[in-house]
Amino acid sequence: MPRVHIDVMLKDEILDPQGQAVERALPSLGFDGVQQVRIGKHIVVDLVDAEDLDARVTRMADKLLANPVIERFEYRIVDA
Amino acid sequence: MPRVHIDVMLKDEILDPQGQAVERALPSLGFDGVQQVRIGKHIVVDLVDAEDLDARVTRMADKLLANPVIERFEYRIVDA
Repeated sequence: MPRVHIDVMLKDEILDPQGQAVERALPSLGFDGVQQVRIGKHIVVDLVDAEDLDARVTRMADKLLANPVIERFEYRIVDA
Repeated sequence: MPRVHIDVMLKDEILDPQGQAVERALPSLGFDGVQQVRIGKHIVVDLVDAEDLDARVTRMADKLLANPVIERFEYRIVDA
């Protein structure tokens, strides 16, 4: 059974307030040397079959999981 | 400059309503054969140096990025 890991992140040119908040919080918690933090979604999809996998995952991410105007996604397939 | 990718997911025994909502939406959008969807966070941290990297990332995730009561995390280091 294939498992697909999809990472959806805001595009680099889009401001990420959640990431910035974490970035600013880290030094006060004793974590120095952090240059940038960006936060997105990690989506794990278990599929019944591996038919036409790349096309299905791309369509799924484009249509439902990511907003292509402001987000980009990457995926990797495990157990295919 | 090391870049760390951290995936924070709800533990398997914790209900994931966001994932379930997507799981139910997929068939009506024409995506069949989806067995389970779980949604978590994907955090990308750029660090200035690679000193003591594993210990720092683990502490960071445990203290700030994940809630160890209900979440688990995995990380991978790129460009270390």
